[in-house]
Formats: sequence, structure tokens, C-alpha cells
Amino acid sequence: MSDVQTGVVPEIRPIDIAARDAARARQAQLLKPPGSLGRLEEVAAWVAGVTGRERPTPRTRIVVAAADHGVAAEGVSAFGQEVTGQMLGAFGAGIGAITVLARHAGADVVLVDAGVIAPPPGVAAVTVGLPAPSRNLAVGPALEASEVEAALRAGRALARQAADDGVDLLIAGEMGIANTTPAACLAAALTGRGADAVVGRGTGIDDAGLRRKRAVIERALALHGARAGEPLELLRRVGGGELAVLCGLALGAGEHGLGVVCDGVIATAAIAVAVALAPALRDRLLAGHRSVEPAHEHLLTWLGLRPLLELDLRLGEGSGAAAALLLVQAACALHDGMATFAEAAVSVAQ
Amino acid sequence: MSDVQTGVVPEIRPIDIAARDAARARQAQLLKPPGSLGRLEEVAAWVAGVTGRERPTPRTRIVVAAADHGVAAEGVSAFGQEVTGQMLGAFGAGIGAITVLARHAGADVVLVDAGVIAPPPGVAAVTVGLPAPSRNLAVGPALEASEVEAALRAGRALARQAADDGVDLLIAGEMGIANTTPAACLAAALTGRGADAVVGRGTGIDDAGLRRKRAVIERALALHGARAGEPLELLRRVGGGELAVLCGLALGAGEHGLGVVCDGVIATAAIAVAVALAPALRDRLLAGHRSVEPAHEHLLTWLGLRPLLELDLRLGEGSGAAAALLLVQAACALHDGMATFAEAAVSVAQ
Repeated sequence: MSDVQTGVVPEIRPIDIAARDAARARQAQLLKPPGSLGRLEEVAAWVAGVTGRERPTPRTRIVVAAADHGVAAEGVSAFGQEVTGQMLGAFGAGIGAITVLARHAGADVVLVDAGVIAPPPGVAAVTVGLPAPSRNLAVGPALEASEVEAALRAGRALARQAADDGVDLLIAGEMGIANTTPAACLAAALTGRGADAVVGRGTGIDDAGLRRKRAVIERALALHGARAGEPLELLRRVGGGELAVLCGLALGAGEHGLGVVCDGVIATAAIAVAVALAPALRDRLLAGHRSVEPAHEHLLTWLGLRPLLELDLRLGEGSGAAAALLLVQAACALHDGMATFAEAAVSVAQ
Repeated sequence: MSDVQTGVVPEIRPIDIAARDAARARQAQLLKPPGSLGRLEEVAAWVAGVTGRERPTPRTRIVVAAADHGVAAEGVSAFGQEVTGQMLGAFGAGIGAITVLARHAGADVVLVDAGVIAPPPGVAAVTVGLPAPSRNLAVGPALEASEVEAALRAGRALARQAADDGVDLLIAGEMGIANTTPAACLAAALTGRGADAVVGRGTGIDDAGLRRKRAVIERALALHGARAGEPLELLRRVGGGELAVLCGLALGAGEHGLGVVCDGVIATAAIAVAVALAPALRDRLLAGHRSVEPAHEHLLTWLGLRPLLELDLRLGEGSGAAAALLLVQAACALHDGMATFAEAAVSVAQ
């Protein structure tokens, strides 16, 4: 499966350097010692560069893709697979963490069924037509090439729709019992780390489960390793439905000039595959937080991103990125709402 | 000046252990793997303990105390003293960082003139009747005992008023050209560190200024050191107007059952003096962030507090605490708005 053959990798729109530099110049004039708002100054300039507006008030959409995974059969999760669909139902009802945070932050939410075994009735979710569950990556490729291509196209279409709706920033959220296992495999393959470095407890497996999960990751890396050097082939072999859709969403964000606030290990693994396919996308990324999953730090280092928050989160769903969004919004409010020294008639440094 | 003689140290109301434990129990039932919201779970339980309500939606007030300092004559700041009053005017006009953040976070702001040389006309600020500026701590005590007492009583009265107004959380903000110097002296005396460990660049002094500032702190510590072991005497000798008012505010928060979100080095130094006077206050504190001022980390360690944010801030005004407030509010929104596993009919871990 060649990246060129599939033709699913779009051109990435460069960030607007002029808008970013104008924002930086404004920051230097605002009523505070230069640099004293620290990372909030960088964040405001990043949003300016991403949106092309010197004083942006960004609109944000959270796309939560849910999928089930054949590798769950290996006993790598603390929860049963029925929970993926149940949680999709809870998101539809607005009572899951990410939907509560979205309301709190004023972001809208789009749900995606990227291969859920038991999708809940009556929940409005975009469907992609992927197998539910994906195939067990410990014994063979998780997806077919045509399925990866469909998922990427669906993700890109979601980003195009967001751009059409006036959205500036996307958060890639996910739900999928067992999905830290494919994410760890992607992280290992991209960053060159072994199973020991990328395995974590996910939603909370015990010591025996952790040993089992490590062995499954090792087996998968040995099975697929030599042929998984190319990003799309990697996604096909050790990815999954939500991972492929979110990879496409990130590519679409780059294509349509949006920014992406990265969440935890699963979303970041999907986005890292997108960066492997289209390195220019990196300028459109902001790392929302660092989770406690060991693979997340390796992915952030590989991406060269410094997380805004470190709150010991390990929920996923987009929750850490949504928490970080609160600071992104505050950074933009300060950037827009503060006066300059000249406007306020305050004396500058001696 | 004896703490007992002055009678200005109130009893601290213990936090509500039952409400905190009920909040923790609720967190364990919410629709997520137990512990997966990390520090946001602790924060929600802290607000519950502070307010006595299992599912609190806290109201917050930011008290910004401004004062000028005689030690500015030693050339320890990058800005002239006229800026203290000018910034108080900017806060009154709603165009300074802390007032922009307060609007963004839905917190109200109370301004206090704790000894400003040139207070701006037409700005509604509570006045305390303190000298403007305080005396130069490099050559003698900054305040009289009666002035410290008046400041503490004013701070406590502000906390009582907040409680009467239905406020749950206070942020102690400050503005005062040269005030990182008294804060560094307080930090050195409380934590047992030397001038080298506590001196920082404040609003941005150059290398020569930094050397000058270090020498001033050394001189002040040598001058006052042996007699500054008692917290109120310390505040009188090397404190200042806003530091004394904010120390009183923190004591009043403890007295009236409020919580305090700590900001940067100056506010935290004032609050640390309050904890030295009334150690039980510690349970009512949350560290909003860690600033780049070296003394701040030493104070947080001494207080046993782990900051929520590390964003390289060094502005003061209450800005870092106001940024952290956004996460406190999000933690409470999650705590209140998420369903339990039972309510959502989602299967628990196997």
C-alpha cells in the first residue's frame, strides 16, 4: 500500500507567518512586561498563525471517533467491548466527560462510528463503513487498504465540513475499548521504541493484564515490523478504525487550514501518522497535555511538541485537549482584550 | 511585635471532610475509569471540602492589592514607581491582564490601594491607610506594627465581605513596582534559603540590576534576619502594604471558610506568612501555577503544594491563579455534569 498510489495525502496549507508575527508584535506592546505571559503568548501567536487572523477568537469542534478492535480478544483491556457503543450513547446523551467539557468550553461535538460492534440506537453519528471490530492485529493486519483509504477520506471530509462551518480548531477525540494497544504499536513503530517503552495500563488493567498486553504488542511488532515502515501500511497493519479516521481528520485540518489541539496517546498516535505522511502538518499542531500513558511522551518528543498541561489524565475522548482549550481561549482573550502600553498611557520599562 | 499580642490571627475553619469524601466517592462512580481524570478529580474534591458542598459550582473573587515600596529607591525594578498607580487605573478600566482574565472566567474583581504613591483618580479601590510607599527595607523596617495590624484587619474584612457575598474561592492578586524584592526576602526567611536562591528578574531587570537586587536582599536579610523569626515581625520588617493585606485576606479566607487559589511569588509569599501564623490554613490552599521566579518554587515546596499549571508566567496580578481557575471550574463542571456508570447504564470494568 503506497502513499502515492492511494492519493489520500493532501497538500498542507502553510501557517500564515504574517499573522503570527503581527500577533507576536502585538504581544510585545501589551500592558505587561514583555514575555511575562509565558506560554500563553506563544499560544495566542500560534492561533494567529493557524487562522491567519492577528486577533483570533477561535471556534472549536471536537470530533470523537469510536471503534472496536479485534485485538480486544487478547485480553488487553479492563473493560468489555460493549462499553465502546455504550459510551458513544453516553456522548450522544451529553453525559460523558468530553461532552460535559465541550459544553463548558463552548465547543461543538461530532460523533463518528468508525467500526463499533454495537452502535447505540438513536445517536446521531457519522458512519464510515468500517469493520466492527477491526481484525486482530496480533494475528494479521487490522484493516484492508481500501478501509484505510475510506477512513482517511472520511476524516478529511469531516475537516472540510468543519472549515465550511467556520471552525478554526479541531480536537481529535476517541473511544474504543483496547485502543491503547494499537496506539502503542503505532508509537513503537514511529519512534523506534520497544514494547516495554510504550505499554501502559490504559483504562486500568492489572499487572497480569499489563504483561499480557506487552506480549501482544511484542508479537504484533514482530509480525508486522519489517513491512510497516510506510505510514499508511503501518496504519493498516496495527491501526484501527478511529485511528485511521483521526489521521484523516488531521490531514484534512492541514489541507483546509485548521489547527489541531492534540489529546492523549491514541489521538496523538493517529496525528503522528499524519505527520509522518505530511510533515508540514506539524506547524498546525498544539500539544494539549501529556497523559500518564508512557507512549504519549515518546510521541510528543518525536513530534517536537511541548504539552501545555500535565494533569495525570488518562481518559482520552479528547478530554485533555478540551481542558487545554480553556487555556487557548484564555490566551486569545488576553491577546485581544488587553490594552497596549500606549492605549493605557502607562510608562514602559526604564 | 508578638502574634499573640496583636490578636489578629483568627481561628481557621477546618475543611468539610464529609463533603470532600462524598465528592471522592462520586468521582469513583462517574463514567470513566477510576482516577482517569487525574488531578481534576483531586481539584473537585478540594473544592467540595472547602465549600462543604458535594457538587460545588464555585463563585470566585479576585482581590488585587496594589502598593509602592521604598526599596524601589535601590534600583531593583525595570519599571518606575508611577507604573503601580497607572496599572491600578488600567485594572479599574478593565484593560489589564487580570481584569481581562476575570471577565473571561466569570470572577469579580476588588481593587485595594494598600499604599500607592499616585493612585489614579476615579478608580473604585478599597483604601487601607498605609504609607505610600512603604519604608526602604534595605535600611530599616518597611512598616510599623500598627500598619501591619491595620493591613491584616483590612484583608480579613475583605474575606468576610466575600463570604457575605456568596463567594467560595479567593484569588490574591497584586501590583507593586519592586515587590519581588520583599517577596524574595519573605521567601528566604521562611524557607531558610539565601539571596542567591530567591532572587529573580521580576518584571525583567538586566544582569546589573539582578546583581544589585541580590545585594539588596542580602543586606536586608543581614539587617533584619536575627529578629525576623516571628511571622508578623517578618512581615513588618521586609514586607509591604499589598503583602500584609493579602496575608490578612488569606487568614480571613481561613476564618470564613473560603478557599484560596495561589498565584505567583508575591501572593504566595503573603499566603505563606499566613500559613506560618495559622498552619491549618494550608488545607484551604490550591497552588494555581509555578512562575519562573526562583523563590516561588521554594515557597511552594515549603507549603507542600503542587502547582496545577507551569506556563512560564511571571506577570503576577493574580493572572496565573486566574488561568488555573479555568481548570478548577472545568473540574467542577465534570464532577457535576457527568453521569455515573449506573445512571448511564454502562458496564463497569471486568
